[in-house]
Amino acid sequence: MKIELNKRILDKNEECALQNANFFAEHNITCINVISSPGSGKTTTLGRTIRDLADKIKIGVIEGDIFTDTDAEKIRAAGAPAVQIETKGSCHLSAQQVTAALSAIPAETLDIIFIENVGNLVCPSDFALGENARVVILSVPEGDDKPIKYPGTFAKADVVLINKIDLAPYIDFDLDRVIKDIKAVNHEAPIFQLSATTGDGMQQWYDWLVAQIKCKK
Amino acid sequence: MKIELNKRILDKNEECALQNANFFAEHNITCINVISSPGSGKTTTLGRTIRDLADKIKIGVIEGDIFTDTDAEKIRAAGAPAVQIETKGSCHLSAQQVTAALSAIPAETLDIIFIENVGNLVCPSDFALGENARVVILSVPEGDDKPIKYPGTFAKADVVLINKIDLAPYIDFDLDRVIKDIKAVNHEAPIFQLSATTGDGMQQWYDWLVAQIKCKK
Repeated sequence: MKIELNKRILDKNEECALQNANFFAEHNITCINVISSPGSGKTTTLGRTIRDLADKIKIGVIEGDIFTDTDAEKIRAAGAPAVQIETKGSCHLSAQQVTAALSAIPAETLDIIFIENVGNLVCPSDFALGENARVVILSVPEGDDKPIKYPGTFAKADVVLINKIDLAPYIDFDLDRVIKDIKAVNHEAPIFQLSATTGDGMQQWYDWLVAQIKCKK
Repeated sequence: MKIELNKRILDKNEECALQNANFFAEHNITCINVISSPGSGKTTTLGRTIRDLADKIKIGVIEGDIFTDTDAEKIRAAGAPAVQIETKGSCHLSAQQVTAALSAIPAETLDIIFIENVGNLVCPSDFALGENARVVILSVPEGDDKPIKYPGTFAKADVVLINKIDLAPYIDFDLDRVIKDIKAVNHEAPIFQLSATTGDGMQQWYDWLVAQIKCKK
C-alpha cells in the first residue's frame, strides 16, 4: 500500500509538471530549476545574472524557501519579477506549487523563468517541475567530495556551476577530482567555474544561458 | 488516508527511537545526532574531536550518507570505531537504521556515540533517532541567513556550532545577526564559534561535550 500511495503522489506531481512544461512550450519560455545545498549561492548567482543580462533577456524567478521571503526581495532588488513560495517545512518544491506561482508573475512575457528550489542537495532532484533544464550549483567551501556523495543530483544536471571559486586559495579543494566525479555520473553537462560574488567566470554561464532561450514569436 | 500512513511511518520510527534511547540509557552512553547542510564540516569536526579527546572519552560514530563510505573511513583513521549507513537515496537517517548500526560497533563500551546524519538541513530534524542531544553545525560560507531560513532545525538544537570561522575574513557574514536569529527560535542552546580545520575555538565545544558524559558503572 505504501508504494502505491507514493506512486500516486508522484503521479500528481508529474501531471502538474507536464502541465507546466506545456505552458512553457506554448509561451516559448525556458524554465530552469536551480538546485543546491543551502548557502551555495543560488540567489547571488541569479541576482548577478539578472543584473548583467538586463538588456538581453527578460528573466523572472520563482523562489522556494521553507520560510521567509528575503530571497524574492533580493531578486526584485536585482530588477526581475519574483514570487516567493514558502513550503512551510517541506524540503522541496512541488510542480503544483510552481503552477500556482506562475500566475503571480508576468510569466508569458518572460524569456527565462528560474525556479530557485529549496536549499537541499537531496530531495528536490526527485521532483520534476516541468523545467527545461536543471542547474546544480556546488560551492567550493562545501568540499570536493560532494559529487560522489550526492551522485543522483549531479546525474540529473544539465549544467553544473562550481561557485565561490574565489575562496579556493583558502580551502583544500581538489577541482580535478570534482570534475572527474561529476563526469563519472554525467558525461553531458558542461561544468563552469565561477564566482557570483566577484563575477569571475560568469560569461561562460551567460553564453550557455543565452543559448537556451527560445525564439519569442 | 495520506495522513494516516504518514502517522504510521512516524510511529514506527518513534518506536525504534525509544528502543535506541533505552539502549543508550541502559549502557550510560550519550548519543549525539549531528545535523547540517552538506559540507558544513561534520566529519572534520568529529575527526578532530576524536583525536583531541582520545585520552579522555571513548567515542564511536554512526555515519549516514546517501552513498559512499568515505566518512566512516575518515573516522576510523582518526582512531574511533565507525559504521557507515548508506541510505541509498533517502534524505535522512531513520531510527531503525541506527538500531541496526549499533550492533556493528562496540557500543556498550563507548561514552559517546555520534550519529552523523545525512547532509541536509531540512529532513533529518523531523526524525528522532533516540539521541540525547542534537548538534546543528552552520558553516560561515553558507551565509548568515540560514537560521531564519531553516528555523525548525535550529529550534531543535541542543548546541549550535558555527564552523569555518577561519573563513570569516573572506566572506560577508554577520555573526551578530546569526546569533540573534538562532536565539529568536532557541533560547537554550549554547552557540560556539570554531574552526575544525585550524582548531580555533574547539575547547568550548569539548567542555560542553565532556559535560554530557554519563558515569559508567
